Amino acid sequence: MVKVLEWDNGVVRYLDQTLLPSAEVLCVASDEAAVAEAIKRLAIRGAPLIGIAAAYGIALAALDQSRIDPRSIRARLSSAHSRLASSRPTAVNLFWALERMRAVAEAEAHRPPVDLAHRLLGEAQAIHTEDAERCERIAAAGQSFLKPGAVVLTHCNTGALATGGRGTALGIITLGWELGIVRHVFVDETRPLLQGARLTAWELRQRGIPHTLIHDSAAAAVMRGEKIDAVIVGADRIAANGDTANKIGTFQLALAATYLRVPVLVAAPSSTVDLACPSGDSIPIEFRSEDEVTMFGGNRTAPEGTSALAPAFDVTPADLISAIITDCGIVRPPYAVSLAAIGEPER
Amino acid sequence: MVKVLEWDNGVVRYLDQTLLPSAEVLCVASDEAAVAEAIKRLAIRGAPLIGIAAAYGIALAALDQSRIDPRSIRARLSSAHSRLASSRPTAVNLFWALERMRAVAEAEAHRPPVDLAHRLLGEAQAIHTEDAERCERIAAAGQSFLKPGAVVLTHCNTGALATGGRGTALGIITLGWELGIVRHVFVDETRPLLQGARLTAWELRQRGIPHTLIHDSAAAAVMRGEKIDAVIVGADRIAANGDTANKIGTFQLALAATYLRVPVLVAAPSSTVDLACPSGDSIPIEFRSEDEVTMFGGNRTAPEGTSALAPAFDVTPADLISAIITDCGIVRPPYAVSLAAIGEPER
Repeated sequence: MVKVLEWDNGVVRYLDQTLLPSAEVLCVASDEAAVAEAIKRLAIRGAPLIGIAAAYGIALAALDQSRIDPRSIRARLSSAHSRLASSRPTAVNLFWALERMRAVAEAEAHRPPVDLAHRLLGEAQAIHTEDAERCERIAAAGQSFLKPGAVVLTHCNTGALATGGRGTALGIITLGWELGIVRHVFVDETRPLLQGARLTAWELRQRGIPHTLIHDSAAAAVMRGEKIDAVIVGADRIAANGDTANKIGTFQLALAATYLRVPVLVAAPSSTVDLACPSGDSIPIEFRSEDEVTMFGGNRTAPEGTSALAPAFDVTPADLISAIITDCGIVRPPYAVSLAAIGEPER
Repeated sequence: MVKVLEWDNGVVRYLDQTLLPSAEVLCVASDEAAVAEAIKRLAIRGAPLIGIAAAYGIALAALDQSRIDPRSIRARLSSAHSRLASSRPTAVNLFWALERMRAVAEAEAHRPPVDLAHRLLGEAQAIHTEDAERCERIAAAGQSFLKPGAVVLTHCNTGALATGGRGTALGIITLGWELGIVRHVFVDETRPLLQGARLTAWELRQRGIPHTLIHDSAAAAVMRGEKIDAVIVGADRIAANGDTANKIGTFQLALAATYLRVPVLVAAPSSTVDLACPSGDSIPIEFRSEDEVTMFGGNRTAPEGTSALAPAFDVTPADLISAIITDCGIVRPPYAVSLAAIGEPER
């Protein structure tokens, strides 16, 4: 597989995901502004990958400032933090990664700037490596829900393009395929940005895993017509009661699965759990531009001047979720108890 | 409003709905093949309008044949019937209209061909006029479900562009607006062909009715975030037990509404009720080309060679439907009893 994001000799090299699947273009970000811009325009996306990219963004700022004017590294780090924090409001991993970088910056503030910058780079690389390891633990834990010949349905992209490793929900699926357990994957196209069509189909194709693309609105009909054994999705933020914010459409998918008695599995690193959010009501939801509804591929699809509402995420109530699969193990209802027990160990 | 479909001096003049909203192009069909082609490529769409167009298609065939070789009018009508019947498999109105035309052709077979052709044209025009009247009756009946200030959500297009009059579900909404009852309309974009974005938004705009376009997958989130008083949708076929086939996505929308305690109203002419279908399981579902999932606006969105499944319709189970609003009155559960009572009076 193409390397999705890597530290390469002083810069961050990343695959521009907005151009997939028609082109595989590697871009370079050499400062925090370029990283923030790449996150904002969704060239780098997926909650865990955003956190990794933001951590490298802080490292880039530190390395750059230590060359220019080492005395002002503190101010530069603070402004880099603000800039990166404002790139995507919903993904909690972003804030988690930035806080972890800030803690290192504070603990190591007494060191010479170049030394501090290298400590920050080391921390960003640790965040990256740990995420890959977390993906493997999630993928392994998820297998207990699948029987040989399993047919699964997923939404959006939660694979190697979204994380520092093999992915969360899609990581369970790709490992399940490698182990001979998963037989077929149905993929929601995932409007508006078609991460399912563009990214998940691309990843599954690269790995040779049989799959079928469907419209988001066909999921319930397909679940009834085909034998689907599980719906497996990722998460952008999980509240203390188990309510889960994820890509728009997840709530409807979970409703359909629940009605049709198909298990709904949420796969996410434990850093996605936000115990400070008591329920889904307190998760901020990002609204995107009206153009993402009224336009498509640069062409207007609705009449000029049409108003639109484009929530990027929705909240699936905890009562529709069969289990949450994390790198710290499997979490089952009642979530208020079980999520508190896994805590936020690595945050 | 632009005339959507009309008989005009020996030809059928129709608005090419595939070009909306960017262009309002009127086309001419002068034989049944052109009508069948227009239905097949969705230039003429909406279950009632398809029935009307097919009836005119039979009239066109009769008029044409009576000029060429009056002796073979019977064979021409039979081949026109087959050709038109194969244009869209799911819409029951199509078969209903064709059967009605066949009954006239048989009853009037003894007449001179030119006379028979004019009788058939008269029958097609009656089907058209009656549909407009049915729309008014449905629209009036639907008002009893709405309170002043009502905010409603609809899917696909069920208005003047889909019928011979003001529409079914959208007819209730537009009349509700004229009466000062409906305040705002949320419109699902309705993938894959975006009838909500392209057609319903266009109709609402033409009538000056405030509306907001959303992604299909955002309906549940929007229903929870905004105060939505009713979901109103059309139907392509209603089984004897109330199971309702309608545009793909209706099933999920009904699930979301039911979970959030929003009434689900189905609006359709009584000709949509097919008592010969005991339940949704016996309604044939049309599958459309894979390209409707893997392409968009002529551009490929999924990797080359991606498999896809594109059901054009789904079946909403009767237990998710609050009421069915027809031109013969309001039908409530238990549908097995109430639908049998309205019978198929005008078919």
